[in-house]
Amino acid sequence: MANFAPYSIHEDRLFSADSKLRSISRDLYASIKDLPIVSPHGHTDPRWFAENNNFSNAAELLIIPDHYVFRMLYSQGVSLESLGIKRLDGGAVESDYRKIWRCFAKHYYLFHGTPSRMWMDHVLCSIFGFEVELTEDSADFFYDRINEILASDEFKPRALLEKFNIELLATTEGGLDDLKYHAQLKGTGIDKTVITTFRPDDIVDPESGNFAHNLTKLADITGQDCASWQGYLAAIRDRRAFFREHGATATDHGHATAKTADLTASECERLFSQVRSGNFSKEQAELFRAQMLTELAGMSLQDGMVMQIHPGVYRNHNGQVLQNFGRDKGGDIPVQAEFVQNMAPLLNKYGNSTDLRIILFTLDETTYTRELAPLAGHYPALKLGPAWWFHDSPEGMLRYRHSITETAGFYNTVGFNDDTRAFLSIPARHDVARRIDCRFLAQMVAEHRISESAAFDLAHDLSYRLAKEAYQNTKTSK
Amino acid sequence: MANFAPYSIHEDRLFSADSKLRSISRDLYASIKDLPIVSPHGHTDPRWFAENNNFSNAAELLIIPDHYVFRMLYSQGVSLESLGIKRLDGGAVESDYRKIWRCFAKHYYLFHGTPSRMWMDHVLCSIFGFEVELTEDSADFFYDRINEILASDEFKPRALLEKFNIELLATTEGGLDDLKYHAQLKGTGIDKTVITTFRPDDIVDPESGNFAHNLTKLADITGQDCASWQGYLAAIRDRRAFFREHGATATDHGHATAKTADLTASECERLFSQVRSGNFSKEQAELFRAQMLTELAGMSLQDGMVMQIHPGVYRNHNGQVLQNFGRDKGGDIPVQAEFVQNMAPLLNKYGNSTDLRIILFTLDETTYTRELAPLAGHYPALKLGPAWWFHDSPEGMLRYRHSITETAGFYNTVGFNDDTRAFLSIPARHDVARRIDCRFLAQMVAEHRISESAAFDLAHDLSYRLAKEAYQNTKTSK
Amino acid sequence: MANFAPYSIHEDRLFSADSKLRSISRDLYASIKDLPIVSPHGHTDPRWFAENNNFSNAAELLIIPDHYVFRMLYSQGVSLESLGIKRLDGGAVESDYRKIWRCFAKHYYLFHGTPSRMWMDHVLCSIFGFEVELTEDSADFFYDRINEILASDEFKPRALLEKFNIELLATTEGGLDDLKYHAQLKGTGIDKTVITTFRPDDIVDPESGNFAHNLTKLADITGQDCASWQGYLAAIRDRRAFFREHGATATDHGHATAKTADLTASECERLFSQVRSGNFSKEQAELFRAQMLTELAGMSLQDGMVMQIHPGVYRNHNGQVLQNFGRDKGGDIPVQAEFVQNMAPLLNKYGNSTDLRIILFTLDETTYTRELAPLAGHYPALKLGPAWWFHDSPEGMLRYRHSITETAGFYNTVGFNDDTRAFLSIPARHDVARRIDCRFLAQMVAEHRISESAAFDLAHDLSYRLAKEAYQNTKTSK
Repeated sequence: MANFAPYSIHEDRLFSADSKLRSISRDLYASIKDLPIVSPHGHTDPRWFAENNNFSNAAELLIIPDHYVFRMLYSQGVSLESLGIKRLDGGAVESDYRKIWRCFAKHYYLFHGTPSRMWMDHVLCSIFGFEVELTEDSADFFYDRINEILASDEFKPRALLEKFNIELLATTEGGLDDLKYHAQLKGTGIDKTVITTFRPDDIVDPESGNFAHNLTKLADITGQDCASWQGYLAAIRDRRAFFREHGATATDHGHATAKTADLTASECERLFSQVRSGNFSKEQAELFRAQMLTELAGMSLQDGMVMQIHPGVYRNHNGQVLQNFGRDKGGDIPVQAEFVQNMAPLLNKYGNSTDLRIILFTLDETTYTRELAPLAGHYPALKLGPAWWFHDSPEGMLRYRHSITETAGFYNTVGFNDDTRAFLSIPARHDVARRIDCRFLAQMVAEHRISESAAFDLAHDLSYRLAKEAYQNTKTSK
Repeated sequence: MANFAPYSIHEDRLFSADSKLRSISRDLYASIKDLPIVSPHGHTDPRWFAENNNFSNAAELLIIPDHYVFRMLYSQGVSLESLGIKRLDGGAVESDYRKIWRCFAKHYYLFHGTPSRMWMDHVLCSIFGFEVELTEDSADFFYDRINEILASDEFKPRALLEKFNIELLATTEGGLDDLKYHAQLKGTGIDKTVITTFRPDDIVDPESGNFAHNLTKLADITGQDCASWQGYLAAIRDRRAFFREHGATATDHGHATAKTADLTASECERLFSQVRSGNFSKEQAELFRAQMLTELAGMSLQDGMVMQIHPGVYRNHNGQVLQNFGRDKGGDIPVQAEFVQNMAPLLNKYGNSTDLRIILFTLDETTYTRELAPLAGHYPALKLGPAWWFHDSPEGMLRYRHSITETAGFYNTVGFNDDTRAFLSIPARHDVARRIDCRFLAQMVAEHRISESAAFDLAHDLSYRLAKEAYQNTKTSK
Repeated sequence: MANFAPYSIHEDRLFSADSKLRSISRDLYASIKDLPIVSPHGHTDPRWFAENNNFSNAAELLIIPDHYVFRMLYSQGVSLESLGIKRLDGGAVESDYRKIWRCFAKHYYLFHGTPSRMWMDHVLCSIFGFEVELTEDSADFFYDRINEILASDEFKPRALLEKFNIELLATTEGGLDDLKYHAQLKGTGIDKTVITTFRPDDIVDPESGNFAHNLTKLADITGQDCASWQGYLAAIRDRRAFFREHGATATDHGHATAKTADLTASECERLFSQVRSGNFSKEQAELFRAQMLTELAGMSLQDGMVMQIHPGVYRNHNGQVLQNFGRDKGGDIPVQAEFVQNMAPLLNKYGNSTDLRIILFTLDETTYTRELAPLAGHYPALKLGPAWWFHDSPEGMLRYRHSITETAGFYNTVGFNDDTRAFLSIPARHDVARRIDCRFLAQMVAEHRISESAAFDLAHDLSYRLAKEAYQNTKTSK
């Protein structure tokens, strides 16, 4: 270990270099850095917490599931096979996890300036306690030590929840999920911390692979007649109730666009019948998803579930990667988004309600100042989700605050989402968000645009209170 | 008063925290802060200056007319009724102005980080002389004191023009307006300060509610035959002359898009006949507006009036608010804008003229570097208006300068517009613009990108000269 | 000379004013400022280097060929005739070069804050050794002294290549060019420095004026049957080989959009036959260009030439200027760009190849974070070109790095391109890029986002290594 270059993460990282700004940032950060983590939207595996087994090894935990990591390596010519990503045809892929880790270490310089490097550095230095640099030479040292630590009791999933000071962690499950792991958690106390989120894309998107099959399954599970429009809606309501029984306070919708519609009942019936038949156009599929967003908003108004909309991604852009390795392998690319025209039908129906909460996300940053901040600064039902996915990064978060605050203020935002399946990176991600918010607030204070006391209140709200309150069931929280 | 928290606006507000930058900013600002205010585009009420009555009370003056203020409150669940916004159906709304003021004060924290807060703080501290913070507790103290001051002679509208050092203030009137208040001003001397602007949307936009009725009225006023295309154009020319007699040097056009057209005379006649009939498509209405922009540019070339184009807003997005409270109630939302294709017909006809001045505004900041700066950096007839509406803010102005300067330079811009109906905020708004321009110039100086002497010239030009010269009638100013 | 105001370019120009950031910037810059210039994409005239004659005078060298310069002057009412820009009709234009230079000097203040001013200041101070300010008064002094220097042996084109420390300079020639100047350079040693680039727009774009004529010429030159699809493709392959013999390692494509297609062979044959006939729609022309990008990518995979795509410009927006003065006269305006949908066909066919290198450029900065960084951070074949044209400027380069680094990293970028025909500005342009990269890296170091040692490596890579490696023929460089 003495042979490796010393390495650490700096206590002032991400603060401005200016001493006045840095000093205010430090004070703000000191006041909120130890607040519990509220993680109301993410993709960790509930099985971890239900079964509470130790994680296997550094590569399986930190590399193979992280599409941020392997997309960068792939872009620089490293094959997905060599990183142990499973092929759908069962073809050979690297199975020596040490080799995979070495490959990552060798290419770690590619991540300079990326959030992946910042998160990984945080995990290595702060969670695993390393004080030297990860390079090709030190790869084995890291690999062995990480695996040793992962095997300890204090690194079991439930212990880590406590170690990370996680007050709430929402997972995300598909509309047909049996939620068996969440069921296992009942009565353990962990069920107060680990809750599910209702993501019905597979049962509301006619273009989601197996729609007809999914409708049949939906009918089977709920006992509702999913051949009729009303029966179908009732079935979705049943599923929502089931999810709420497993802690869900929110729904999530990953449509291609933010398009909404407000059709008549008979138009709905005809359209449902069409998409159910499997014989429908792209436009009809889009219109059905659009109508369903409005239907789901209506259900949220009834049952109080907070509605999250994550539009604007061209999924599986790389056909070859999709065919060989399946979905979520780094080939999702943002496209232009539009909210003003698209959201008008839904907002005209429900946007003035103070009993409904819809949280909008975007990957198209041009919509921040042009569309989202003006919409959220007007409609009572709307709130802005934090900088998302590719923008869940220091620069992305700064652009977000600089863009939306003047029109939407701070109180039409909902705190931070980590949106991650990389469990160990959760503290790192929340830490980045907290530091960047403190940095932004420090600049506002130093430029006499907000008072220092307002900044302390806001630092607390942005780090903790807003996330907690925004995702409370709107029916129970009043 | 001793019980309320002390509060003030800082003399260095909006300057960078860096001591070197701040020092240069201060010097630049000191050299221009006392220059007269030129306000060539806005929406104050000419009746104020014609009748010169005292303003009524804090709520009626500062809250109820300001859609920036009540849109934010509405977004956070405060009803428009409780803010005293009149319902179209005459339904009950709050009429106790003290209560409305208290409601605003209670929610004043929502405005942290917004320009509304910055302007209001300026009004309260700098114009009304408060030295304590506006909160729910201090609301009554503020309310009583403001009303007392508003009742004094030195707060009559004409006295305020002088107090604010306003050299020029352009109001905006519709194409059919009788301009009676401007007429009343004639001979008072104030008519040199308060002038009108010709905004003919109601007589050139077939989709503006009552188009047929407006054409009849236009014919009545001008005596022209508005059933014929040539008569209609003549009538518009008459109205322009009438507005010029009341001081107007500019026209203003708030079309949904920047689309222009250059049709043949017979196409124009057919299209006019169609839109006049009331039986037209959306596309025909859009084409008519497009043709009219080109016609109006031609008229500007003849009569020298400066042409302002403010496109890209989805008006009255919230149908419920429109139905209950009418237009301009915070429900206008920007949409994507396009200038390159849309402006081509007009620019190909008139863009090379050095006798025409067209000022473009946008709410879609993506057009700054992509479209507007390249267009303004080429066509002699084009100038760029300042950051507009949602972007009339510290961050918005900084983005504007950082985005457009390298391609359009400083001299293809036209100084600041406050574009406001909030009369008391005019000094605050110009002060923000001046501070931000000084801040931007200070950075350029400190990074050795412009010389200090150039920065002092530019500070003066951006604060005063460019606005004054850009809005001079191009026929009389040569 | 003693009468003119002293003027210089500051050694710390473009670095942040903050002393900590400036100090790190200086150290980084000192380590790379003397590296040779690699200029892999530009528009200098190969004749200069073949014939090695002295340049004529200040106006002919520095003003008349520079559309950045005369577009700004034109936007402010200076006629192109008065700047000596040749009219197509042979009409009179200013031919007194001293007068043209005086006109420029008089209006030099218009360029405050623009990259043109920064480059020109660099040329005047650093290359010509001036220590006073260029104004109307000093214009003659500058003019005479520049012409005197230009007449010296050390200012002959080949001597300047050495003086500027240019290791590589790629020119750009059309697909039908005979490359006679590059042929003349063979054996001089300069042919290792000055190479060509294959730009086949005139033989692949059916809407490029004289397409039928160009195809005939292509057939004549290559002896291939350009009436058949396969013969046409063979002819293009022949031209590529010819260009490679003259040093070319890259191709360049200036299509209106980034649209690509992947048609069947018979569809290609039919489409080729259609566009060859001259009787085709706009859509067919666009589809043909789209298919050709994919064909050209396939050829690059075979012959190793690096493919550059520069889409998104509305060429010759100003019809009057086009008619009177021809192309490239400052009337090209960027439009919205789209890469995700448009590039999908090509990327699905070839994007996973590690033997192909495609470099994308954009004038629509909204695509940086939304489309380009995510695409380049995934596809092995894709790299991002530097900030281009209107964005080849301090602010443009900063936006580029701040926008793309977090998602694409540094190693999916390719260093700097000067893309210029203004030979004397090449050192200035590379110096701006190097300073801005050092400034960006300095901020990353000071905020503890990358280590200091990483920053030194990156400064070298961004200034030299990446440009050199990215443009090596991918077949010969492995």
